[in-house]
This record gives sequence, structure tokens and C-alpha cells, in this order.
Amino acid sequence: MTISEVEPAPISLPAAKDKLLFTPGPLTTSLSVKQAMLHDAGSWHFEFNALVAQVRARLLQLAGISQASGWETVLLQGSGTFGVEAVFQTCVPPEGKVAVLANGAYGDRIVQMLEHARIARAVLRAPEDQPVDPVALDALLGRDPAITHVAVVHCETTTGILNPIDAVCQVGRKHGKVTVVDAMSSFGAIPIDFEGCGIDFLISSANKCVEGVPGFSFVFCRRSVLAACEGYARSLSLDLLGQLKAFEKTGQFRYTPPTHAVLAFSQALTEMEQEGGVTGRGDRYRRNHETLMRGMSELGFRALLPPAVQSYIITAFLTPADPKFSFASFYRQLSDRGFIIYPGKLTQVDTFRIGNIGRLFPTDMDQLTHAVRGTLDAMGCTVPVKRG
Amino acid sequence: MTISEVEPAPISLPAAKDKLLFTPGPLTTSLSVKQAMLHDAGSWHFEFNALVAQVRARLLQLAGISQASGWETVLLQGSGTFGVEAVFQTCVPPEGKVAVLANGAYGDRIVQMLEHARIARAVLRAPEDQPVDPVALDALLGRDPAITHVAVVHCETTTGILNPIDAVCQVGRKHGKVTVVDAMSSFGAIPIDFEGCGIDFLISSANKCVEGVPGFSFVFCRRSVLAACEGYARSLSLDLLGQLKAFEKTGQFRYTPPTHAVLAFSQALTEMEQEGGVTGRGDRYRRNHETLMRGMSELGFRALLPPAVQSYIITAFLTPADPKFSFASFYRQLSDRGFIIYPGKLTQVDTFRIGNIGRLFPTDMDQLTHAVRGTLDAMGCTVPVKRG
Repeated sequence: MTISEVEPAPISLPAAKDKLLFTPGPLTTSLSVKQAMLHDAGSWHFEFNALVAQVRARLLQLAGISQASGWETVLLQGSGTFGVEAVFQTCVPPEGKVAVLANGAYGDRIVQMLEHARIARAVLRAPEDQPVDPVALDALLGRDPAITHVAVVHCETTTGILNPIDAVCQVGRKHGKVTVVDAMSSFGAIPIDFEGCGIDFLISSANKCVEGVPGFSFVFCRRSVLAACEGYARSLSLDLLGQLKAFEKTGQFRYTPPTHAVLAFSQALTEMEQEGGVTGRGDRYRRNHETLMRGMSELGFRALLPPAVQSYIITAFLTPADPKFSFASFYRQLSDRGFIIYPGKLTQVDTFRIGNIGRLFPTDMDQLTHAVRGTLDAMGCTVPVKRG
Repeated sequence: MTISEVEPAPISLPAAKDKLLFTPGPLTTSLSVKQAMLHDAGSWHFEFNALVAQVRARLLQLAGISQASGWETVLLQGSGTFGVEAVFQTCVPPEGKVAVLANGAYGDRIVQMLEHARIARAVLRAPEDQPVDPVALDALLGRDPAITHVAVVHCETTTGILNPIDAVCQVGRKHGKVTVVDAMSSFGAIPIDFEGCGIDFLISSANKCVEGVPGFSFVFCRRSVLAACEGYARSLSLDLLGQLKAFEKTGQFRYTPPTHAVLAFSQALTEMEQEGGVTGRGDRYRRNHETLMRGMSELGFRALLPPAVQSYIITAFLTPADPKFSFASFYRQLSDRGFIIYPGKLTQVDTFRIGNIGRLFPTDMDQLTHAVRGTLDAMGCTVPVKRG
């Protein structure tokens, strides 16, 4: 038997690139951000501590606030949810009560956190396709003096809706309440006026619009407000004040930090600064969103939300009415083509979601809508879509 | 002026390799483990979920236990401390009480966790250079029927001492208590007989002896014991039962996982299997430890602990009595030579620590003691060391 007669073994060829992530995070990141993780850093070592101090300073700068005017940022291990929960676990006094404005899964998650921590709460719900209501909050705060804190989600990624954090926090401030903003998917892409809004705590995460990898969240806070919470913490790991004190005393995280994720984040901050900070990054995401909307509407898709309240972070599209459409098959075929989209999370309406954030460019959005077209053709499926 | 007349600018040359970490973690890892992080995975995506399922199955196999015999493993975002705290936050009933056996900083940390969670506790302390005492536990459990849980640290990295988890957990079992073992720095390097010891919960972390990168912990547990904890959880993020339910229902982490750390961990498990699992890994660490002890004792250093209770994970050395010795300078000069050691954490005696775990080999331990010799010479410092 000669070599040419040997039956070749089936070869599984690895793809040249990762599938692109059109999700609310973890996101597609640059190769250089990932390459920053090819090093092992000592978490107690002075070189790593210096890097952590720089990261904290650069985050404040990115946010447009400063230690001099009373602001701090605290990094916390875990996902963004850990950071949000840490604020409530650390900062609500035993007899405190939190007003939660909710119009989606992330507002509901705050309610769940409070339930777990046995913290009193009042929930103001808005329909999932409408922004939360500062006027209703004003009335609530007027009639319930037990409330100490107000919590709101900036971009509710359940739908991609943008909530009016300025009006909400200003109402909270007017009534003398502490204000907490979950800005997980908006920080870094949508300008936020911390002082103008009257924000006390704002939480985001490494793997969102700064385009780092997942591993920690960060909490911006007014130092005096956090410092006043001594003794309230119900959890050691989630004790935000304890974490701040460790940064100030030793320069270190209290417990093992995700060193590689911190190295990646430092590189991500550099790339963000090179892109022009929040403005530059937001511009790219807006162009991504415009390109997506043009492509999807040409295919007959309609967004759940009206443009006035739709963020350029993530978009919920109504599922096609055609019975030949199945989301599972749609998702799988797009994945086979190298594009990972996101399922819907709504309770009322069938949707799927496409994110515009991460290391994605308008050409990627174009490629995605091209793949959507091909997938619909392969499914023999037609749009326009059903309503409701 | 010719080119040759131009004063050359000082050049800062990057080192060919990272400094080696002789610490209790984060550790030096293989390049291939870090390279596994050069990919972005979708945390909701079926391919990533399949990987998470594999990682959980391989962890059970490494531990020598199985789902068939009632065991589960739950991965949790954050450092190892988050995993330990999650057990108490999730599993101690409102009227529960935990007996903590403590002989170092990690036992004390469990006490801090319970204080934060307002969980009742009884603390049995042993001196830092002696193992905790199962006989004292037996007496305590005999006289305090309110105790529901027993907690012990396996390798207390404060000193490197090894506690008798078999005897401790057997006493706990005899009294019908739930047993919790913090095996952060021992799991994967020291064989543990889960069934024989009578362990209910055992916690370790990705960046310890499996040699992954930091980002999550994992908790082994008896399914029935965890399942009986419905409704106890005091924290949403740290709700271990909620996390298990999500893995079982959707295959996903409840909240954003550190996807890159999970990719690295999968590769680390492969390299661990190739090395011969717990036995092979433990053998290498033992050889590292022997090489270190030989080199350090030739230099006149003495370990804090007697060999009988000294683990091969990390060793505390007594600080030289010579007034020319300064730990800060010693540490800095070893760092300049490419070796990062670890400070002491004892309350009574001046020590420093050297870890043997991570992607280190006997030749690295030799290089380290060579650098220690050079550093002592440069400091003009002599050993032997003081006692106490």
C-alpha cells in the first residue's frame, strides 16, 4: 500500500477566530487585552499593587470624578451582580429600606438581593417597554419616610431600555435618600454626570463597555457615604468598606484578586483612552447600533422599543411570526456562521437580543445581518414579525 | 554631530520571563494554561456550558467522588474566601451555630465571616504552631448541643501546618454535625478521603494546586446536605444552592462567570491529569519542599514547625536574628533577582514564608535558595536565626 492509497483521517480544523459575541457581556475583547493575561502577577507584590492603584485612579478619571472631590472606586472580585449586592449588604443600615425602580430582570435582581439579605424594600414597577417613573418615586418617598435608599438600573439590558437616572437620583436626593445606580452595561459608553445626577453609588463591571474580561466589578462611591456604613456589612466577602480600607491601608485586595483579569483591564483602559474615552467608545457603539438597525429593518425586523428610549447598548427584536421560525435553530445556525446572539428575557413578548458592545465595529454588524439573512433563507422563514 | 556622538537613551529591557511566585497563590502557572485565555467565550453559549459541565465532572473525578454516590461540585465566582463564606451564608439555618477550629489567619477568617453574617459560633483555638484538637472538639460538642456545624482549615497557610481533618470531621460526624473543610491550598496536592473523613462541604480555589488562574472557587458537597438548606441563604450572589440549581437547570452560572479563568482551568485540569492527578502533583510539591528545606537549612534557616506537622505546601521560616536583616530589603532584593516570596502572617513570631506550589520544580527551588544566599551576602547578613 502506497502513501497515496491511505485513507486520510477526517481532520477537524480549528477556526481562525473566535465567534463574535453580540451579547451584553462577557464580550468580544481585543487580542491585546487577552494577551495581557499571559503573565502571572503576585497579588501581594508591590508591582501589582501599583497597577491596582493606577487602575483605580484611571477609573475615576474615566468617570470624570476625583478623590479630591470626595469620590472613591472599589474593585470587588466576582461578577457585576456581586458588586451591586455588595452595596446593599454593606451600606443599608439594619432598619433601612430600599425603594427599587424596576422595569426588567436587573431591577428584579436587586429585589431578590434585598429579599436574601432580609432588607425591607418597596418596589416601583414600570412595564418592561417603558422607562421607570421619577414622579411615582417622588410620591412614594413622600408617603414612606422609612425609605433610606433608592436603587435604579441605568440601561436595563432585559430590553435595552435607558432609564432616566438623572431625574430618579435627583428625586432621591431631594428627599435626602442615598442613591444607587446599576450602570453595568452603560458605564463607559454613555456619559454619566455623577455630580449633576446626585449619584452616591454606581456599579459597573470589568467585562462591559471598558472591554476587559470578566472577574471583578467596580463601585464608584462618595467616600463619606460609604465611610458612614461602619458595622452594617452582613457579609465579609461583600464588605465594600472593608475592601476600601484594605486598598487604603495595604494597597491590596483583601482576598485573592483575579490578577489576570486586572492585567487585562489595565490594557483595556489604555485602549479605551486611545479611542477617546467615553465619547469615542460611545460613538463606535452608536454607529454599531445604527448599522444593525438599518440591516435588521431591511430584513423586516422591528425593535421592541421606540427609538426614544432605546439605548445603543443592546436591542431586543420581536421574534418573527412565521411558524417556521424557531429561536433555537436560528441561534444555532448563526453560531455555526460565527455569530453568537442573545435570547430574550422578557416575560410578556417573544424577543431575541443583539448587543452592540465589545470589540465590534460597524463591519461586524453588517456581517451579522448578512448572516441573519442567510439563516432566514436557510430556514425558509419570512419576516415581518408579529406584534406582541 | 555624528550618530556615534549621540548619547544613547537608557533602554528599559523587558525580562524574558515573569518573576516566579513562591506564594500560597495566585501561583506561577504554565504558559499553556495562560494561553487558553486567548479566547472569548459566550457565557450563555452551549459550547461554554458543555465545558463547564466537563470541568465539574473532572473536578469530582479528581476528588475521587461521584454524583452517583451523592456528591456535587459548585463553582462560584470570586476568590476562595467567597466559596468558604458561601457555604456558611447558604447552609447554616437561622438558629444554627458553628464550631470553628482555628490555629491561624484562615480559621480566624471563618470566625469573621460568621460575625458578619450574625451566625452564632464557638471558637476552639490552638496555638499557631500546633494542629487543632479533635479531642477538645469532642468535649465541646458534648457540652453544647446548639452547635450544628463544624469548620476546620486543612492546610493553614499562616504557618503551613496540616490539621487532622479526618479526626476532626469524624468527631463532627459522630455528633451528627455538618462538617465544613477549607482545603484551599491542599486540595489537589494532598490526598483527601471524602467519605472516610466524613466531609460534607470542602472548598478550594482555581488558582491553588490545580494551577489555574484566580477567578472562582469550587465547593464539593453532599447533594442532600446542600439541598436541605432551601431558604437559608442570606446573600444572592453567595447562594450556593441557587448556583447548583442553575447549573442543573440551564448548565450556566447564574451570573457572569470568569469565562477566561474557566478556559484556563480546563487546560490546568488536563495538565494535572497528565502529571498523574493528586499523586503526581503531590510528589512534585514534596520534592520541591525537600529541595527547599535542604537548601535553606544549609544556609542556616530553620522552619517554624516541626516536620511532623509541616505540609509540603508552604513553609514558614524564622527570621534571622542578625540586626542587619530586614525583611523589606530581603524581599525587594529577591524580587530584583526574579523570585517573589511571601511575608509572615503570625502574631507571635517573626517569620517569612516560601510556597512550593504552582508550576515550580526542584530546580526552581534550588535557584531560589541560590538567590537567597546571594541576597544574604549582599546584605552582609548572617544566619542562624533567632528563636521566638
